[in-house]
Amino acid sequence: MSISEYAEYYEESLRLHAQHEGKLEITGKVPVRTAEELSLAYFPGATAPCLLIERTPEDARKYTIKANSVAVISDGSSVAGLGNLGGLASLPMIEGKALLFKKFGNIDAFPLCLSTRDIDEIILTVKNISPCFGGICIDGISAPGCFEIEKRLRADLDIPVFNDSGQGIAAAVGAAVINSCKLLDKPLSDVRTVVCGAGAAGNAVTRTLIRLGMKDLVVCDSGGILSAARISEFGEDKLELLELTNKEGISGNLQDAIKDRDLFIGVSKPDILSEVMVRSMAKDPVIIALANPEPEILPDPAKAAGARIAATGSPAFPNQISSILVSPGIFRGALDAGLPVITDEMADEAARTLAGLIDEGDLSEDKILPSVFEEGVAEVIAKAVAAM
Amino acid sequence: MSISEYAEYYEESLRLHAQHEGKLEITGKVPVRTAEELSLAYFPGATAPCLLIERTPEDARKYTIKANSVAVISDGSSVAGLGNLGGLASLPMIEGKALLFKKFGNIDAFPLCLSTRDIDEIILTVKNISPCFGGICIDGISAPGCFEIEKRLRADLDIPVFNDSGQGIAAAVGAAVINSCKLLDKPLSDVRTVVCGAGAAGNAVTRTLIRLGMKDLVVCDSGGILSAARISEFGEDKLELLELTNKEGISGNLQDAIKDRDLFIGVSKPDILSEVMVRSMAKDPVIIALANPEPEILPDPAKAAGARIAATGSPAFPNQISSILVSPGIFRGALDAGLPVITDEMADEAARTLAGLIDEGDLSEDKILPSVFEEGVAEVIAKAVAAM
Repeated sequence: MSISEYAEYYEESLRLHAQHEGKLEITGKVPVRTAEELSLAYFPGATAPCLLIERTPEDARKYTIKANSVAVISDGSSVAGLGNLGGLASLPMIEGKALLFKKFGNIDAFPLCLSTRDIDEIILTVKNISPCFGGICIDGISAPGCFEIEKRLRADLDIPVFNDSGQGIAAAVGAAVINSCKLLDKPLSDVRTVVCGAGAAGNAVTRTLIRLGMKDLVVCDSGGILSAARISEFGEDKLELLELTNKEGISGNLQDAIKDRDLFIGVSKPDILSEVMVRSMAKDPVIIALANPEPEILPDPAKAAGARIAATGSPAFPNQISSILVSPGIFRGALDAGLPVITDEMADEAARTLAGLIDEGDLSEDKILPSVFEEGVAEVIAKAVAAM
Repeated sequence: MSISEYAEYYEESLRLHAQHEGKLEITGKVPVRTAEELSLAYFPGATAPCLLIERTPEDARKYTIKANSVAVISDGSSVAGLGNLGGLASLPMIEGKALLFKKFGNIDAFPLCLSTRDIDEIILTVKNISPCFGGICIDGISAPGCFEIEKRLRADLDIPVFNDSGQGIAAAVGAAVINSCKLLDKPLSDVRTVVCGAGAAGNAVTRTLIRLGMKDLVVCDSGGILSAARISEFGEDKLELLELTNKEGISGNLQDAIKDRDLFIGVSKPDILSEVMVRSMAKDPVIIALANPEPEILPDPAKAAGARIAATGSPAFPNQISSILVSPGIFRGALDAGLPVITDEMADEAARTLAGLIDEGDLSEDKILPSVFEEGVAEVIAKAVAAM
């Protein structure tokens, strides 16, 4: 499969979606064939756990779907590089995410695509529906709104709030960078990086890499390098990013930023990285190009321009970097342990665990991470998260 | 099973609920075993329906779970006679309702139990999560709040909003009354009725019976007969009920109201109807006593006091009257036909259809309606609703 074959998936995907009328089904786990079974599962039987939970709210995790359910919340403002689709039109992708949570993490995830983009309304809505869920997964909500939503929901809820489009992608990138460093035999702390994109993903990737030990990062957004010269343009999120990055105080555009860097991480727009720019990087550079629907640069031209390792978000090439590698395992662990929060440290541990799943002998330029289909990935990550 | 055996269900029900950690599961309808299947169900395939739905929002019913999904919304303020449990503690009952929607209507129903009782917040929350759903079922929200919630959601949403605890119960009661009239060979328009309870159910039952042709009703709430003398106590809902009822302008309590009446419908509190009161009714009275967890009067004492027909909400006795007899079929029909609304006329048609499912030859004092387990009930109601 190549990028040019995406078009063929369209018709086939429409047929698949229309055939099933969506991809999820809600089924019963208990039988209701007789009056006795009905009395147990509904009235009067179900009043028993109701009364217990009223007295001891934590019992909800014992007797209800809260034990294993995650709401996947989106306003459709930033889904898969499609721009602002709105809640309704984003439903096929968000349903898909829920489907993958089931497939890879055995999590009962329900897509809640919202008809509002108002930050206060989104926060209120998620808080109000939170009793039924053991976790909240934010997906495809554009920055900087998503940062405030995450922050305020974390402060108010006693269940984990995790941004799949931010922390999820960042943990997968973190794992890819850890293993790239192993391959290059270079300490992560010595790697000089440019992150292209300062949205939900760019922000989380930058913070994750710093927590993992990276010291020299420069971040670019569509206006160029985040630098002191531009602070009048920045909101709180970019001011904070600037404080963490660009220690040398350079300014300019991506072309200036990438010069002599070891690592390019793109979470921005298709086709914005040229071979010339790759050639201006340090020796044996690593290109992690995750833009949707197509990467910042395709692997072949990246390699032709000297890249030692090339990774994308697409299953069409080796080295697919996707939040699906980590998020189902992270939520699985959080649900199993009944965690009230998924900390940055847990996400970092997930990144290290994912990286460690490839034996050094098996590690190669074309296999820096396990495939999403490799057995047991989520289970191992879940155990690591739950043990923290 | 008798009412006294309810206690035994408690332990057994707790075991059942704990064994499965809730009663619902979210499963995938499409395979994700290979990179190709992943590309169809998620990225990039799922972007195809996203883009179509962005252009033509109605296509969401073709390509997503909106085709068959219903949100069961509750704030837990009035669930199964348990009082105000709150959203979290009501989850086992609301999950149970969702389970029954699947069992009887093949509907993918998801319980959304809310952490707020604020009417504006509930309305906003339901509007915000509505894109993913083909219908909204309100359940266990106390009156009069539920009336405003229903009214404003109906005005704002383009999917059906149906109150299972109001219109749902009322349609089942309507069917029971239609068949009771057949048994008694008395036109419904001649039946003199007292409705005990003026909450969500009492209100809807009264309006339904009037639409079905009943002329003489008196409604009691905990303060006694709704009468002109009490209008200073009433909100809009009870003022409207008063306008429709008590044409003779009587006042007093239930004991005064029930004298010489043909039909008692209780949607109030356990054990408030005495044998003496039943004896004061007209000849061959009908007692439909639906209070939870126990009826206003048990069938045996009602019969001993002269009742010709006795019905309750419990599966422990003959003549169980439950919204489950109608709501799954009504929603099934609404989803099949893509209806934007479930009108009162559709609910009335569901009542007539349910009543008509018992051949006159099979009709008896102990079988005025089909059992919830009779095959095909929901299908026949669905067809009747969809054909309107």
